Amino acid sequence: MSARLLLGEPVAEKVRQRIGDLVTQLATEHVTPKLAVIVATDNQATNWYVSSIARAATKLAVACEVLDLGEATAETLAETIKTLNADEQIHGIILQTPLPQGIDASSLVKLIDPAKDIDGANPVSLGQLSVGQEAFAPATARSVIEILEHYRIPLAGKHVAVIGRSTVVGKPLAQLLLQLDATVTICHSRTVNLAEHTSRAEVCVVAAGQPHLLTANEVAAHSVVIDVGTHVTESGGLTGDVQADSVQPLVSALSPVPGGVGTVTTALLLLHTVQAAVNFLERSRRGECQMSVGR
Amino acid sequence: MSARLLLGEPVAEKVRQRIGDLVTQLATEHVTPKLAVIVATDNQATNWYVSSIARAATKLAVACEVLDLGEATAETLAETIKTLNADEQIHGIILQTPLPQGIDASSLVKLIDPAKDIDGANPVSLGQLSVGQEAFAPATARSVIEILEHYRIPLAGKHVAVIGRSTVVGKPLAQLLLQLDATVTICHSRTVNLAEHTSRAEVCVVAAGQPHLLTANEVAAHSVVIDVGTHVTESGGLTGDVQADSVQPLVSALSPVPGGVGTVTTALLLLHTVQAAVNFLERSRRGECQMSVGR
Repeated sequence: MSARLLLGEPVAEKVRQRIGDLVTQLATEHVTPKLAVIVATDNQATNWYVSSIARAATKLAVACEVLDLGEATAETLAETIKTLNADEQIHGIILQTPLPQGIDASSLVKLIDPAKDIDGANPVSLGQLSVGQEAFAPATARSVIEILEHYRIPLAGKHVAVIGRSTVVGKPLAQLLLQLDATVTICHSRTVNLAEHTSRAEVCVVAAGQPHLLTANEVAAHSVVIDVGTHVTESGGLTGDVQADSVQPLVSALSPVPGGVGTVTTALLLLHTVQAAVNFLERSRRGECQMSVGR
Repeated sequence: MSARLLLGEPVAEKVRQRIGDLVTQLATEHVTPKLAVIVATDNQATNWYVSSIARAATKLAVACEVLDLGEATAETLAETIKTLNADEQIHGIILQTPLPQGIDASSLVKLIDPAKDIDGANPVSLGQLSVGQEAFAPATARSVIEILEHYRIPLAGKHVAVIGRSTVVGKPLAQLLLQLDATVTICHSRTVNLAEHTSRAEVCVVAAGQPHLLTANEVAAHSVVIDVGTHVTESGGLTGDVQADSVQPLVSALSPVPGGVGTVTTALLLLHTVQAAVNFLERSRRGECQMSVGR
């Protein structure tokens, strides 16, 4: 027996189709959705990631402006966010990490207008998400849900273990799972006897940031495992938080790394941008904000 | 064997002492902490609850203004919140539920300045709490933590089951427990086989809003059970979400209803108000806001 592979590509393709439909709709209203990515680092991996977002955007007729601010100060970054908040041509804002040393990201993401916070970085977004109000979830957390839903893995009433309590994945993901009526156990680095929790779960999502943390010892037979980890191997490849070799023969389904969650994330960032543009259009129709079209 | 009773009164007394100390400190700066409670209902239970807060405040030299707006409209309520936000004499704001029929509380609590949101009603407070930033937790959720800490129940690395996913108790409590390094399972009305989760937990917090939901069948021997439910019995007494008679002989400790969590909540509302006043004083010292003293 070997696990069914829950690949990200078909899910991403479906997301891209939704983007295409919405972009077409917006075009009839003379609106081009636009994402702004603020970069303040010379990190090679980051540059590669940001240009991959820009390329994906171009292919889908979503405008993407990368603001490379070099070694910017916190003041410059704050001013840039405020300018983008006020710019009605911009529908989505990402503050790309890492930031220059000594700059506290948490005081900056608070400044992102929740309506443009398409990667759910502002705690306000997480709060709204938690109480079931409309808000953008971090794209990675949302990717997990999109994969589970695409492959029709039932969640209501199921026991889902989430390993990791980060504000980027674990915590928002737990909120999304609760909304879908899952019973959720949140495990983390201080959890004693991880296997006791994960081996009872029908679905296990691993976002611990630790290569090969989850082995056959920690999973239930026939369960579903979603790997959210991304680590560069010595040979330059990618590997995840799951020891796939040992887990795969045991479980019923596995979303692998590479080829799983990460594949969907960029598409979701763009879907959120397009949805933010749609929301903006609706608000301006209701007279809640001004809009100038056709530019 | 019978469980140790984790009573709220000694915990509340400790909280009142902290309030007393802070009020004395604030007095040297000519600041009187002040709470505003907005009431828009003629509900008898609510009136009783609000006057109990006012009485407790008076005893502790915390000013408390109850704004009884009768059957107010959403607009009036919104304006009242904004006026209180702007009033530098007011440090804490509670929007008391229930509200008149047809009025959506969630769109109103969003208006409460997070700095004055001393019952953690604004989703922004929950978001900040979730990412570990300073914010006021709902007093009931915080009461549970205060009781566990007062009675030195270890939480780090322990498995805590929370029954209930409300935004007032379950969800914020889960965040507080995660910050204290507990492994947290959130159960709710759609959980299949509740006992499977609760009977493995070292601590079980029941905030389900269902009288006597938790029985001996659902708890582990020697575990700790905290009852957050409050229901009026036919004879006019109070009972909780725990079937105390059957649970008490089995567990090592039980926080009962009445006499447990509820006893601490009012004291915490006032502590939060006083802390909000201290925060305000500190911010005004740093020049972040204006303050006029001595009134």
